Amino acid sequence: MTDRPAAPAPLAVSLGDPAGVGPELLAEAWHRRGEAGLAPFFAVGGAGLLAAAARQRGIDVPIARIADPAQAVTVFAQALPVLGDADGAYAPGAPDREGAALALASLTEATRLAVSGAASGIVTGPIAKARLTEVGFDYPGQTEFVAAGCGIAAQDAVMMLAGPSLRTVPLTVHVALSRVPVLLTAALIERRARIVARALQRDFGLAQPRLALAALNPHAGEDGRFGDEEARLIAPAIAALRAAGIAATGPHPADALFAPRARETYDVALCMYHDQALIPLKALDFDHGVNVTLGLPVVRTSPDHGTAFAIAGQRIAHPGATIAAIRMAGECAARRAAGPTA
Amino acid sequence: MTDRPAAPAPLAVSLGDPAGVGPELLAEAWHRRGEAGLAPFFAVGGAGLLAAAARQRGIDVPIARIADPAQAVTVFAQALPVLGDADGAYAPGAPDREGAALALASLTEATRLAVSGAASGIVTGPIAKARLTEVGFDYPGQTEFVAAGCGIAAQDAVMMLAGPSLRTVPLTVHVALSRVPVLLTAALIERRARIVARALQRDFGLAQPRLALAALNPHAGEDGRFGDEEARLIAPAIAALRAAGIAATGPHPADALFAPRARETYDVALCMYHDQALIPLKALDFDHGVNVTLGLPVVRTSPDHGTAFAIAGQRIAHPGATIAAIRMAGECAARRAAGPTA
Repeated sequence: MTDRPAAPAPLAVSLGDPAGVGPELLAEAWHRRGEAGLAPFFAVGGAGLLAAAARQRGIDVPIARIADPAQAVTVFAQALPVLGDADGAYAPGAPDREGAALALASLTEATRLAVSGAASGIVTGPIAKARLTEVGFDYPGQTEFVAAGCGIAAQDAVMMLAGPSLRTVPLTVHVALSRVPVLLTAALIERRARIVARALQRDFGLAQPRLALAALNPHAGEDGRFGDEEARLIAPAIAALRAAGIAATGPHPADALFAPRARETYDVALCMYHDQALIPLKALDFDHGVNVTLGLPVVRTSPDHGTAFAIAGQRIAHPGATIAAIRMAGECAARRAAGPTA
Repeated sequence: MTDRPAAPAPLAVSLGDPAGVGPELLAEAWHRRGEAGLAPFFAVGGAGLLAAAARQRGIDVPIARIADPAQAVTVFAQALPVLGDADGAYAPGAPDREGAALALASLTEATRLAVSGAASGIVTGPIAKARLTEVGFDYPGQTEFVAAGCGIAAQDAVMMLAGPSLRTVPLTVHVALSRVPVLLTAALIERRARIVARALQRDFGLAQPRLALAALNPHAGEDGRFGDEEARLIAPAIAALRAAGIAATGPHPADALFAPRARETYDVALCMYHDQALIPLKALDFDHGVNVTLGLPVVRTSPDHGTAFAIAGQRIAHPGATIAAIRMAGECAARRAAGPTA
């Protein structure tokens, strides 16, 4: 316990679909590593296509192949480190089966390296789920894939969206709106809220994170006039959280919860369904939104956008979310390495 | 048809609950009438309490009692015109039954004047519905009250929220979220969308308004994987609207619809439920949101905020929404007076 810790392990970044904007934004993030203050990272595969994507984008990005993640730390200042020999052609906007297979291999290896500790965290590039499914991917999304790789049940891997303006968590995610009132329970709300509170302490350095729980119904149901989930499900969950010492408030009428002054009163808004969380995040922080998975033994972030095949290779894709995802992963990993603060 | 039109009638502004922020913001709007470019308006009742509210706010607002709405036009430059003798005490933050009765009388008379044509439109101040109910008000809100005064069925009076960043319409409003999938029909979507399209032409001067219809389910249901309302209800309504020559698009995944670049592609977003429309509006345009009722024979707007009893009389209530509501009512009334453009 007297040794100084070694330099933290670098972050592993998966390529995402090579025909999307993932490779060019990965190259761009390395290009801006200094101004953006990014911790060392390496790409998992794709040396040739990353070089091609950088050329296409018009930026100078030397590539350094590495055989071991630890090499990335020393190489990072001079070149974009790329681990392994897996590679493919760079054909932006023209996704194919080989590209999907490469994306899946990159994601699989990046997850393995994070779980083993060889990487301090994983940043996943954007994939096209339908295409990945064609090559054997059998998960609702990358979040569930990474959770499974960590041995964590999918329902305990909690998605948080984080931008410069706010953080939001959808407590239910990819389900029909009509199923939301059926799926919500006080137990689910409380369980996921606890995961969020712990993660904001451990990974985001908030000693006493303030959780604002949104209502499900308009005007929070106006005292039961339209909907009773506030009194029946959300308020009891909040009471249980507060009894456990967690600073939880609500249920708040959702429409007012994301107004500028309201946003100053909490660290994260817990939302009852996907669009309740994603609408304000994308309205306010579209080019800088990060998708963070909370509750995992590994740090995992992702830019909150898709493959954007239609604009890949055209030098117009915004690098803000990729840069923010890498920066946030580095910060979370550093806090985990430092251990709990007093 | 050779006469020049007479000066348009002034706007009638109802007081709202006198214990809320309505009176001080009405006085503030008159105070800023020049810089804000407001058309002549008059308050319906409350001469004494408006003078008191202005003093409390620290602004110089001379009051001119008028006996006929037409007098407001000439008086407006020098004083805030107030029609009639109805009045009450100014006790900000302390709502009572007398105040509620005054608010209801003011709303009733303002509506009557707009319907008769003596006022060119009505701007309603914020009320506390529960308090108004105690004095005999029997409507879900002011929108339905004004619609009834016009002889229009409540379901054909369509609420639009308008701010500097975007316009949104909730196609269902004050109902439990669980009832939204039950209440939505293709016929309802099409009927309200037609009312919106006509109103944007007539009142907002958009020759070919672009309507973007939001999806109900996350990711627009992802090809039916979670929810089929997009294919079953929304797409058929869009097809019918397009067949009628209306520029309708969608169903668009709602989370991306309010991002900055997406907002440039439409004039109004038609949303499937209350919070889908109100969350982005309040996140982006909180202090400047206007609630406009479309489909009425009279122009009606309202600041999109409540009575805010807690901050009434403290000089901190933001006048942006009240000023925007009066400006918008004036602009809509002027377009109606000018008649349809070629």
